[in-house]
Amino acid sequence: MDEIKLDPWGDSLVRDYEKLFTVFGIRPFREVLSLLDKPHLLHRRGVVFGHRDFDKVLQAFRSGEKVALLTGFMPSGRFHFGHKMLMDQIIYYQSIGIDVIIAIADIEAYVVRRIPRQEALRIAVEEYIANAVALGLDLSRARIYFQSNMDAPYYRLVQMFSQKVSMAEMEAIYGELNPGKIMASLTQMADILHPMLKEYGGYKHVFVPVGPDQDPHIRLARDIADRFESELGLRRPASTYHRFMTGLNGGKMSSSKPDSAIFLLEPIDSAVAKLKRALTGGRATVDEQRRLGGVPEACSVYEMYHYHLVTSDEELLNIYRRCVKGELLCGEDKQYAAEKLAKWMEEHRRKWEHALSLVTSKLDLPSF
Amino acid sequence: MDEIKLDPWGDSLVRDYEKLFTVFGIRPFREVLSLLDKPHLLHRRGVVFGHRDFDKVLQAFRSGEKVALLTGFMPSGRFHFGHKMLMDQIIYYQSIGIDVIIAIADIEAYVVRRIPRQEALRIAVEEYIANAVALGLDLSRARIYFQSNMDAPYYRLVQMFSQKVSMAEMEAIYGELNPGKIMASLTQMADILHPMLKEYGGYKHVFVPVGPDQDPHIRLARDIADRFESELGLRRPASTYHRFMTGLNGGKMSSSKPDSAIFLLEPIDSAVAKLKRALTGGRATVDEQRRLGGVPEACSVYEMYHYHLVTSDEELLNIYRRCVKGELLCGEDKQYAAEKLAKWMEEHRRKWEHALSLVTSKLDLPSF
Repeated sequence: MDEIKLDPWGDSLVRDYEKLFTVFGIRPFREVLSLLDKPHLLHRRGVVFGHRDFDKVLQAFRSGEKVALLTGFMPSGRFHFGHKMLMDQIIYYQSIGIDVIIAIADIEAYVVRRIPRQEALRIAVEEYIANAVALGLDLSRARIYFQSNMDAPYYRLVQMFSQKVSMAEMEAIYGELNPGKIMASLTQMADILHPMLKEYGGYKHVFVPVGPDQDPHIRLARDIADRFESELGLRRPASTYHRFMTGLNGGKMSSSKPDSAIFLLEPIDSAVAKLKRALTGGRATVDEQRRLGGVPEACSVYEMYHYHLVTSDEELLNIYRRCVKGELLCGEDKQYAAEKLAKWMEEHRRKWEHALSLVTSKLDLPSF
Repeated sequence: MDEIKLDPWGDSLVRDYEKLFTVFGIRPFREVLSLLDKPHLLHRRGVVFGHRDFDKVLQAFRSGEKVALLTGFMPSGRFHFGHKMLMDQIIYYQSIGIDVIIAIADIEAYVVRRIPRQEALRIAVEEYIANAVALGLDLSRARIYFQSNMDAPYYRLVQMFSQKVSMAEMEAIYGELNPGKIMASLTQMADILHPMLKEYGGYKHVFVPVGPDQDPHIRLARDIADRFESELGLRRPASTYHRFMTGLNGGKMSSSKPDSAIFLLEPIDSAVAKLKRALTGGRATVDEQRRLGGVPEACSVYEMYHYHLVTSDEELLNIYRRCVKGELLCGEDKQYAAEKLAKWMEEHRRKWEHALSLVTSKLDLPSF
């Protein structure tokens, strides 16, 4: 069996998800699907594919215990449809009554990516938080905080965790270490585990929706929880795992590769142009495609439908069928997707403008 | 020239102070003595022997600029006469109008010495803070804080500093690293430098009175200040250096070696017994001592006079002369010292009891 090296700060694309089940003990999400009354399309369509202990969390939630979703966004670039996929999950969980806590990882952005604090603050507000609200996040029922703007019990965790983590453990996860990486990692551990403390409303089950590249962080958080169970009452956080979005030109969708991603706030004509240039599952010639059909599994336009643009499962299936039968050609399909995308983005932009003024008036922003 | 390795977390005794001047650039304290109107006996008697940039601090102070003394106590053992020597300096500086800021290094105690937090809190209050107040510290004019109980701008420094310190730099100071040592070090850097921030009253000159074993910390703090001068307005902290107290049985005075130290709150008969067993500069026989005289420089009883028990320089000189002339023998001398010590400790104990109730009612203690 190949060794799988997951690198949370790298760009490696983890495609062989099945191995996560056998090597790393992640469980298939389909096992827990029945515990959600009205699963989100990302759950139904297998985008969220794995979990650790999420069955326990959902059972606890159904029997009235407190549950919180914890997620972090590093404000280091523009908010794209890959981020939207995670945010859609968060908004779904909020809609069914789960507490949502969002860490803005401005410290990680500063120490690992060297982004100036003022810039990180601007990106956090304009890109991440305002887009989240525009997508449907209820600001009044979510707790959003900046890592650099927390209080003593949270930072005390960062300090205390430093005593029970070894360099070897950290090296195994992050490769070559430096003080900034160690700080960013311990801070992330405090993000995940602090909602369990009495200072933050008392014990609650915490789960973290992540991409599989983030699993080393989850495992470290679970190990640390074990080590502080008696001293601080921490328990292992649960997690769910979602597939990455494929970049429009293959590879991983990433803010740092502008052609790979559509950003929610970019000019619509630029977004449409990217979509029209996108890699599809089409064949070399029209004739061939009519004869053999397209390959939606390899098509980034179809992925946009699958994750975002087509909310009806029936419509999605219809597109899928027409494509594989060779009835729907890429040109026609891209035109259809472009229209859907343009309409969606236009509406989103209006919501975002409203959201931005809400965010700046309601949120406790750090004063640098 | 021998290489001098200063190890702030070890027990090595640095006797060859002269080399600090030539190798490490520490300046003799006598250069700045004239800038103090009424120097403390520890200054007059050469116990405080070196400094970095303390001339600049004193000149700034004399021209009306804000100056703060920053010191830290790790609550890891009982308060002894070595601690008193540092506290006496602090109280002196407070008396001439310098702001005093005291960090209780409970995080360092926890992560480096593995002292449970509740225990560190108790030691901090009963031993360090109450003894300080009993010795004359004005609680209402000092800022005393616990590392684990600060606010965001302070912790933000810990986080930010992590970005601009390398592993190699830290290894050179601390030897083999672990996340706890890195955390303790960066936290100490925030202790030293945070008083310069606008969030803590705006820029002020900071100086730190330390033993020479702490100089690597000072140099790191000065380097970090340089690196954050433009971003945060930090400037190099100054420092002063004091001789260690010799342990009663030779070696360094240390809480972890109870026979080496007299603790301010220990039973008086136990303290007197230690003093009477103490290593002196006496000769093998009475005859020899009458003929050759004693060696006060090698005498831990004389050191107790020098640092603590004899405040009159004239009386100290008289004892010194009688000793070196062979007029004062160790038996008589120890009896005299024991009486002085017993009287001092009795009075101190009364002050401490009063101080303890003051401290617990006035101080913002962390709630674990």
